[in-house]
Amino acid sequence: MYLCPQMQEYPSILLSNAVDCFASLPGVGRKTALRYVLHLLRLNETDVDHFADTLKQLKHEVHYCHICHNISDQEVCSICQSHHRDHHTICVVETIRDVMAIENTGQYSGVYHVLGGIISPMDGISPKDIEIDSLVDRLATQEEAVEVILALPTTMEGDTTNFYIYRRLQALMEAGKSIRVTQLARGIAVGNDLEYTDDLTLARSMANRVEFKA
Amino acid sequence: MYLCPQMQEYPSILLSNAVDCFASLPGVGRKTALRYVLHLLRLNETDVDHFADTLKQLKHEVHYCHICHNISDQEVCSICQSHHRDHHTICVVETIRDVMAIENTGQYSGVYHVLGGIISPMDGISPKDIEIDSLVDRLATQEEAVEVILALPTTMEGDTTNFYIYRRLQALMEAGKSIRVTQLARGIAVGNDLEYTDDLTLARSMANRVEFKA
Repeated sequence: MYLCPQMQEYPSILLSNAVDCFASLPGVGRKTALRYVLHLLRLNETDVDHFADTLKQLKHEVHYCHICHNISDQEVCSICQSHHRDHHTICVVETIRDVMAIENTGQYSGVYHVLGGIISPMDGISPKDIEIDSLVDRLATQEEAVEVILALPTTMEGDTTNFYIYRRLQALMEAGKSIRVTQLARGIAVGNDLEYTDDLTLARSMANRVEFKA
Repeated sequence: MYLCPQMQEYPSILLSNAVDCFASLPGVGRKTALRYVLHLLRLNETDVDHFADTLKQLKHEVHYCHICHNISDQEVCSICQSHHRDHHTICVVETIRDVMAIENTGQYSGVYHVLGGIISPMDGISPKDIEIDSLVDRLATQEEAVEVILALPTTMEGDTTNFYIYRRLQALMEAGKSIRVTQLARGIAVGNDLEYTDDLTLARSMANRVEFKA
């Protein structure tokens, strides 16, 4: 007799509820969720309480920087507060993870603007749902010349969002603001073989070839 | 500049704490933990509180059946309480997951005894640390003939535990108890090709061959 995995019965409703919770996380199935739950059951009560309280505290006490919308412990994040960062270079990214990825390179000294998503009619995300208006407001109040680096995903949604933001910034530029809009270089990833690079990337890196620097 | 992953800085201490918690789960690295945490951050407060409260409730309110040590919502689990199960067939397993795996087959109508581990000198687990004494006590109070099915892992530790339990039960048998000790059939798994079966399994299934039933 074959029982499909969904029919699996748990010996306790508490166990079943906890498995439901973990299984709601991205990429976690019911078997993995059960593994996590049985691990927690082996811990002592203090450790499980600490786990639960940390999650509650995160959700209740976390702030989002009201300048760049990055996650923060204060009203303004440490990057926006820093005097060592170049506040006239603003890198526009989709998520907090992108900020962390760029920070990890140690090569960028400007500030950020986290959109919290990209325009995607398929997922019902319109320009109003993400932090584009606040980017425009932020640039409108800048007195000096600013560079905006578009660092969104290289997908159709990313390109759409890039184009939409560029159109909005064009209005500011026509009103006399000095804004330079750039985007991350696209091409063959460092360390990749030509033969394993996809056609579109290869064609574009051929079209956008640059002068050889010795 | 290459920064090793451990050096990654989180923009918030709350975020970092939550990542630490999830990264303590088995098989979860810091990248996966961050993915879980950012998912929780996107949920509303009620859902995160529900997640945290479910974990606390699980740890504080869960019971272990005092007969078979399976997880349960009551003092005695539903399997041990059931009148439809054969209480003279006791299947000895390592963990709660093994009970669920056997229950899922729908082919077993006896009861269980969950050891909560197997004897492993390497991991410092001695016979006193697992529920062997309670198994012996449970069998000592049985008046009628009992079958004990040893369903432990087919590893050296599993074999050691099987042997230890058998020795303990022998003492009961010599004292006049009627106990039949069996173990799960070992051999080539259903659906497996001979050529991909390991040597030891193949040699043993040859040695333990059985009459062909048409």
